[in-house]
Amino acid sequence: MKNFVSVDDVYDINPLVEQALKFKTDPFASKSLGIGKRLGLLFLNPSLRTRLSTQIAASNLGMESIVFNVDKDGWALEFAEGAVMNGTTVEHIKDAAPVLGQYFDILCVRTFPTLQNREEDYSERIINQFIKYAGVPIVSLESATLHPLQSLADIITIKESVMQIPASESAGVKIVLSWAPHVKALPQCVANSFAQWVGAWGEAEFVITHPKGYELNDAFTANARIIHNQEEALANADFVYVKNWSAYKDYGKIISNDADWMMTNQKIAITNNAKIMHCLPVRRNVELSDEILDGNNSLVTQQAGNRVWAAQAVLNEILKSK
Amino acid sequence: MKNFVSVDDVYDINPLVEQALKFKTDPFASKSLGIGKRLGLLFLNPSLRTRLSTQIAASNLGMESIVFNVDKDGWALEFAEGAVMNGTTVEHIKDAAPVLGQYFDILCVRTFPTLQNREEDYSERIINQFIKYAGVPIVSLESATLHPLQSLADIITIKESVMQIPASESAGVKIVLSWAPHVKALPQCVANSFAQWVGAWGEAEFVITHPKGYELNDAFTANARIIHNQEEALANADFVYVKNWSAYKDYGKIISNDADWMMTNQKIAITNNAKIMHCLPVRRNVELSDEILDGNNSLVTQQAGNRVWAAQAVLNEILKSK
Amino acid sequence: MKNFVSVDDVYDINPLVEQALKFKTDPFASKSLGIGKRLGLLFLNPSLRTRLSTQIAASNLGMESIVFNVDKDGWALEFAEGAVMNGTTVEHIKDAAPVLGQYFDILCVRTFPTLQNREEDYSERIINQFIKYAGVPIVSLESATLHPLQSLADIITIKESVMQIPASESAGVKIVLSWAPHVKALPQCVANSFAQWVGAWGEAEFVITHPKGYELNDAFTANARIIHNQEEALANADFVYVKNWSAYKDYGKIISNDADWMMTNQKIAITNNAKIMHCLPVRRNVELSDEILDGNNSLVTQQAGNRVWAAQAVLNEILKSK
Repeated sequence: MKNFVSVDDVYDINPLVEQALKFKTDPFASKSLGIGKRLGLLFLNPSLRTRLSTQIAASNLGMESIVFNVDKDGWALEFAEGAVMNGTTVEHIKDAAPVLGQYFDILCVRTFPTLQNREEDYSERIINQFIKYAGVPIVSLESATLHPLQSLADIITIKESVMQIPASESAGVKIVLSWAPHVKALPQCVANSFAQWVGAWGEAEFVITHPKGYELNDAFTANARIIHNQEEALANADFVYVKNWSAYKDYGKIISNDADWMMTNQKIAITNNAKIMHCLPVRRNVELSDEILDGNNSLVTQQAGNRVWAAQAVLNEILKSK
Repeated sequence: MKNFVSVDDVYDINPLVEQALKFKTDPFASKSLGIGKRLGLLFLNPSLRTRLSTQIAASNLGMESIVFNVDKDGWALEFAEGAVMNGTTVEHIKDAAPVLGQYFDILCVRTFPTLQNREEDYSERIINQFIKYAGVPIVSLESATLHPLQSLADIITIKESVMQIPASESAGVKIVLSWAPHVKALPQCVANSFAQWVGAWGEAEFVITHPKGYELNDAFTANARIIHNQEEALANADFVYVKNWSAYKDYGKIISNDADWMMTNQKIAITNNAKIMHCLPVRRNVELSDEILDGNNSLVTQQAGNRVWAAQAVLNEILKSK
Repeated sequence: MKNFVSVDDVYDINPLVEQALKFKTDPFASKSLGIGKRLGLLFLNPSLRTRLSTQIAASNLGMESIVFNVDKDGWALEFAEGAVMNGTTVEHIKDAAPVLGQYFDILCVRTFPTLQNREEDYSERIINQFIKYAGVPIVSLESATLHPLQSLADIITIKESVMQIPASESAGVKIVLSWAPHVKALPQCVANSFAQWVGAWGEAEFVITHPKGYELNDAFTANARIIHNQEEALANADFVYVKNWSAYKDYGKIISNDADWMMTNQKIAITNNAKIMHCLPVRRNVELSDEILDGNNSLVTQQAGNRVWAAQAVLNEILKSK
């Protein structure tokens, strides 16, 4: 694996999931692999779970990690070719990335979309320019349109649950990605990425449900069935991933915020006693009801815990490829 | 020791002090105890000495520590049961704490009081909810009403000085906690905690002196004599702890700020050539005169240095109890 | 070496450069020297390259490093003797520095000039008071008037290039420091320090060129020839260091900002195919044209990479002197 910015960087998902589960059983199984190697974690936007889980993963592999949170005002990067930098940007990616590439063996980058300029966001120019200029492997800690470490952790979590189902019943698992209300306009990253990974994984029936107007970019949803009626979508679901996102078409907008789309125990009743997933942080009683998060169907804490093993499997793969 | 948030978590103070002094002599005496263990340091409020001393303590024990400073605006936690989170809080403690508990073996938390809502502050709901939901030992790096790592370092520092007094004279040591003026309304934490620890320790005569109106919560001062006349209080003192706090009764207020309460060499003359203590940072020539801080009676640098050994003794105890 | 705040702390530059180049070849050659030693990195002003390169250098030597970024508003230090601290400063350097000296074996400090008060800036009172009160070696990570780790990395980079020139031609190398336009008023640190180091090194002809009014403090430029005509200065140059600085005389001011002073390929044509240097971050097409930074004459990435080996050579020297 050269970089890790989308599912396309993964040759085969299942061995990566198996490697992650091996690390979960034995965190220090490859504790010498990363000795003398350095991981840089560059945050152009803040992060909690992603930073901690990636630092722990690196440490489990014997790598040293150094975090640098960039105050966008303090270190505004320029990405435009040929720019005359007499404004607010203080350093060009063409100068910054190669320096970071000298300091680190692997560089992790977190960046967010503008939610203003769809073309720019979907070009993923920030993470792509790091790939172009850093000269070392780049790992996405969430980019403008995708969040692959989250999605890998999601697949790991689903796999763990499926493994507990008797083989005779585990065929035909059904996963539903269900849009939820929120008070803020959020990126499409987690939804895009989950759709992309579940589609590429191919081991489940996959349905996406959302109010009209919240259609995702169909580059990511080719293997999903879109159903606008949430009840119909939830029928017989084994896993329900609850997540808000802002509109892709009317870009970055909240076009409706119907509280009826909140996930509740009443809706779980429609499903096959589905496990409920969310990437956190979650707005209680807006996206999901308390009763779900405090109940036995919730996988959210387990999902967050699996972020460590997802990151460790990816770093392990990159270290072995170097 | 399961958690460390107040003196009540300590079975016996003296062995803990002795352990700290052993580490001061031999910092790496238990350098393998924490190998493969992770310490999370969560700062809901900023810290300098507390962070550095705790990180160093962890490292001396072989533990890895990861710091995360939380910008309250960026990661506002919700603590209310049943809250509909459609406002400014982005994550509920019930979701955040168990995730941190998965990432870390011990979790340290720093938080401050509001100084607006006494009932809320004195319920210690923030640190108590971390205890309730994290599932791993919690260490207070200062909470709404207490600062136990500071108090342990204070007792260690007093013990070091007492050990230098000939046995015949060391009986009947007198400690005075003396309120000092300040330009800001400060928490009662250090004063509450010092009173609680000296009271529980029980090896000294203990007097608290302050202008009327600055009475502390008597839950912490049961073993202290309160004297409002500073001169009378200081007579024959062996240790004088100088500290400002805001009012407990008229909660969080500065009700008087008489410059005459500043500690000076002239006042030391009343004492038994007392050693002067302060937790730092100190406002020179407001709380304490320069002459004291630059003179031989000051223990403040030694106190700050002892923060390392206090933290190391506590972490050592928790690691051994796991 | 006791402290490292200017070239005056270096007994002989060449052995330090050679040590740095040895570490570049074998980063872990002294990996046990710093075991059990702690490096504190205190940033009173933000830093990217300096922080990362120094942390990596420390780690290569087996040292643990702890970074603390000080929000000036949150931890405003007092430096005035006898101050009555009833204003905005929260801690006196006389109290803070000895505590840090207890926590760390070596203390690195980054601070910037006010650019308002020349006398205060050029007294270097901040870094000098750390030296006075910390009780451990102090390393400058850039101070009010100097940036010695940058200058050492610059000399290392020049040396690397000179070593590739046949001996018969390497005599009489010419270095030019050329002022460049910028949109902000910058410190004189990098220019002062480069002039000081190249002057002390003494192995090259050294010319400084700038518009009238940008004369540096002549304490640093004694061994340089000042030529106000840029073209004349550049003739036959082997190395051109491009850098903006604000005025020393009319202190901290931008007194002219002539775009003609930007370095371009056309100007390189006047030189001896000079290598172009800059400390980064650089404003493209304001200080330097794209064509230079993207071309073969640029040493800027190599310079930034050499920051690691400069810091490592200095820390190595201090550790060996302790």
